[in-house]
Amino acid sequence: MKLKEGNIVLLLSESGTSFLTRLGKRKFSTHLGEIDLSDALNKEYGDFIETHKGEKFFLIKPPIGEFTRRIKRQTQIIFPKEAGYILMYLDIFPGAKVIECGSGSGSLTTILAHFVGKTGKVFSYERRKSFATLAEENLKKWGVIDRVEIKVKDIEEGFDEEGVDAVFLDLPNPWDYLKHVRKALLPGRHFGAICPTFNQLEKLAEALKSNGFTWIRSLELLKRDIRPFPGRVRPEDNMIAHTGFLVFATLVKKDGQET
Amino acid sequence: MKLKEGNIVLLLSESGTSFLTRLGKRKFSTHLGEIDLSDALNKEYGDFIETHKGEKFFLIKPPIGEFTRRIKRQTQIIFPKEAGYILMYLDIFPGAKVIECGSGSGSLTTILAHFVGKTGKVFSYERRKSFATLAEENLKKWGVIDRVEIKVKDIEEGFDEEGVDAVFLDLPNPWDYLKHVRKALLPGRHFGAICPTFNQLEKLAEALKSNGFTWIRSLELLKRDIRPFPGRVRPEDNMIAHTGFLVFATLVKKDGQET
Amino acid sequence: MKLKEGNIVLLLSESGTSFLTRLGKRKFSTHLGEIDLSDALNKEYGDFIETHKGEKFFLIKPPIGEFTRRIKRQTQIIFPKEAGYILMYLDIFPGAKVIECGSGSGSLTTILAHFVGKTGKVFSYERRKSFATLAEENLKKWGVIDRVEIKVKDIEEGFDEEGVDAVFLDLPNPWDYLKHVRKALLPGRHFGAICPTFNQLEKLAEALKSNGFTWIRSLELLKRDIRPFPGRVRPEDNMIAHTGFLVFATLVKKDGQET
Amino acid sequence: MKLKEGNIVLLLSESGTSFLTRLGKRKFSTHLGEIDLSDALNKEYGDFIETHKGEKFFLIKPPIGEFTRRIKRQTQIIFPKEAGYILMYLDIFPGAKVIECGSGSGSLTTILAHFVGKTGKVFSYERRKSFATLAEENLKKWGVIDRVEIKVKDIEEGFDEEGVDAVFLDLPNPWDYLKHVRKALLPGRHFGAICPTFNQLEKLAEALKSNGFTWIRSLELLKRDIRPFPGRVRPEDNMIAHTGFLVFATLVKKDGQET
Repeated sequence: MKLKEGNIVLLLSESGTSFLTRLGKRKFSTHLGEIDLSDALNKEYGDFIETHKGEKFFLIKPPIGEFTRRIKRQTQIIFPKEAGYILMYLDIFPGAKVIECGSGSGSLTTILAHFVGKTGKVFSYERRKSFATLAEENLKKWGVIDRVEIKVKDIEEGFDEEGVDAVFLDLPNPWDYLKHVRKALLPGRHFGAICPTFNQLEKLAEALKSNGFTWIRSLELLKRDIRPFPGRVRPEDNMIAHTGFLVFATLVKKDGQET
Repeated sequence: MKLKEGNIVLLLSESGTSFLTRLGKRKFSTHLGEIDLSDALNKEYGDFIETHKGEKFFLIKPPIGEFTRRIKRQTQIIFPKEAGYILMYLDIFPGAKVIECGSGSGSLTTILAHFVGKTGKVFSYERRKSFATLAEENLKKWGVIDRVEIKVKDIEEGFDEEGVDAVFLDLPNPWDYLKHVRKALLPGRHFGAICPTFNQLEKLAEALKSNGFTWIRSLELLKRDIRPFPGRVRPEDNMIAHTGFLVFATLVKKDGQET
Repeated sequence: MKLKEGNIVLLLSESGTSFLTRLGKRKFSTHLGEIDLSDALNKEYGDFIETHKGEKFFLIKPPIGEFTRRIKRQTQIIFPKEAGYILMYLDIFPGAKVIECGSGSGSLTTILAHFVGKTGKVFSYERRKSFATLAEENLKKWGVIDRVEIKVKDIEEGFDEEGVDAVFLDLPNPWDYLKHVRKALLPGRHFGAICPTFNQLEKLAEALKSNGFTWIRSLELLKRDIRPFPGRVRPEDNMIAHTGFLVFATLVKKDGQET
Repeated sequence: MKLKEGNIVLLLSESGTSFLTRLGKRKFSTHLGEIDLSDALNKEYGDFIETHKGEKFFLIKPPIGEFTRRIKRQTQIIFPKEAGYILMYLDIFPGAKVIECGSGSGSLTTILAHFVGKTGKVFSYERRKSFATLAEENLKKWGVIDRVEIKVKDIEEGFDEEGVDAVFLDLPNPWDYLKHVRKALLPGRHFGAICPTFNQLEKLAEALKSNGFTWIRSLELLKRDIRPFPGRVRPEDNMIAHTGFLVFATLVKKDGQET
């Protein structure tokens, strides 16, 4: 399959320098020389192109984790390790209908849209127009805007949808919207949120309990990179020590019978 | 949607006791009293049933992370945190074609099959007949056997497929099969493996380099559970300190031009 | 130096089984056979004795970390990793005068007494008589009771000492005693505490600030054991994920001038 | 006790800016204004001095952990968390005789000298003259040079001492010197080392075994700082993910009987 304009490519030099870009008839400068992206058109993933200095850059199909990690952003984003875990515990599947708020830069939105596929739908709420625009732009880059509805509105009044398979909130005050979550989410299904502080985690857990959620749990994920250099394998010197606490809970019918 | 025989349900009591089971006309005993699973038929997720002692058990739709974590097993399994990360970095998507070896108890197989969806395909190689049978059983339980081909064979001679989107190896000696991976995997796409020891990680990284892979990296993920009890929020006392090192690499054409 | 009655010995078999004991004319049974401790008298550290089945047990001088980790206890203890860090940040030195509350089983008391040496002093407060008795017993075993004053009393009314070099509190409500700490601790010196929960950490940090302490900080230490087996080096499967948060702060004069 | 020339002081502003310095008749500039260190003479720890702009700096007695963490250095140093753990497992005590190699910048040397006290002795070997000089300078600053013998020599030929209580090696190839450690260390006592890579850890563990050491174990310590800000308590964003693996082992007599 030949590469063409609009394809997302990870350019990776032999020394490890890399750029994530969208193919087009453009040139750009690197410390290894100028790259003419036109050279990549009609090549394939796995091929390389060369700078004017003869330095190779391989054309790699970026995995979604790397795309979203490098996404153009105006906000803190949800990182691949958390996003992957959310996929496992929110019960995301091809065809799923999911509510997310806020869109932010669209990192998690893109991941959810990617995995619910063409038959699924992501309803992504974002109060701030500029974030919504950025999220939309990022979703278009990854080619999944068709399955996303971005809603530029506050969720004070609730969500427009009912019967969704999962709800994820990335907000400073998720506890304020649990009554809306109850209305939108199918019973027996799962709610998730990310909280930067212990205080938020605590307040959310308490509110989940009093709003009739069950199986309330919280965790954090730490990623440690290992240098795989033969003869001197060792963990990297530094790591990100905190991205956020994930909180999950399950909605049950209040008396177990109500609709 | 009414529950019926064959549905997978997570039964969760108010005190936190839980069982993962498949609905049918069966009874089983718990320390909270006897449960008659027939009671769940025609109820919905989010409802509850009661033991003969009147203890409630909620009927929860298990997220795939929880299903695979509790899967019937004869082998070490890949846990949700690693599985989620693999989804993000192997470039899995609805419709993807993926090779995995070995199937083991089918934990990762089920997750891959879940996310590639009906239009995708997982080719899962397993040398040992008994593991293959168990993996198949687990895939059927989750309802995704239609998109999986389990192959009871050794990969000494290579894979039967070409042009797949991703390859994942969970074997003691992944380095021995990289030449086969080269043939099966599309260029510019991603290879992954899990290694319990540093020695394996090291040997694999070295072999990846000499087999023309690039962007070779390794990491580990640590999950720390937090007790979200209001007024006394704290990490859990114990954690699993090691599940395995993830290794990822990208296949490029050897001279960047070959087909 | 010959071993004699009363010496503390770590008995270590070739298979890794170990016992911490005090030498005396006693016998005890192990799954490797009966040990007659009299056999160790007049031997030296580094020698071995044999069970009646001929299994060797080496006579090892226990490091203080191992002694206190295995101390006879009725309470949660402070572990070596935290104790070592406390030595570094409370400014402990041979000759130092230190207040600690409560004694608990005497684990940290023993460590402080060990490092302040014969010229130092540890004032260890404990409300419960039974704990104080146990702590005293443990301090005697390690041979450092001479430099410890155990005080069976509540600290509601304050400490008896003034001008001490360091204060450490291991209590559920350390914030209630900061005014007493101010009176006892030399200005410009350091206060420490251990808190199991985030809520305690938060409350203590807030109280430290309003009580005129500065350089308030908090941290946790995680220990991960590595299996050093050649050819299969890897982290251990399990670890203790939480022992407590250490909190440190420094006392300054309220207006910088008062005595 | 009045402060005088030569005293080590941690200067801490109300905004958290800090400097570690030795008192003298000097001035120095900070972004908060000029500090005249003469102002601190005849004050006490816990008092403050002011910059020419009126900004307060408190005069704090630095704990040894902070002094050594900020030590003037030309090498990687051993950090407080590891140093504290070494104190607990090498069996350091006031009066102990300890061998260390290499001195490096003298961070661990200072800590060992501090805790063995005036009646103890640290024999610190360092091949490179410039490091030895720096280590000596740092030991003088902390006031513990009297109990340290720095030896500018290679340990190829072994150590000059016998019958020491503990040996610690911070070298790229500790396995090469284990036969010398056997001669110098008292039987039944403890050896420690720090290794940056898994390969070193593995090689050392193997050599310890074949050199008649027992109780061979390895671990790593991770420190995670917590922001103790009321209402928004959370781990810091970043952390040091790797400082080194600690390896400990115990010397026993080869046949359990030899002297």
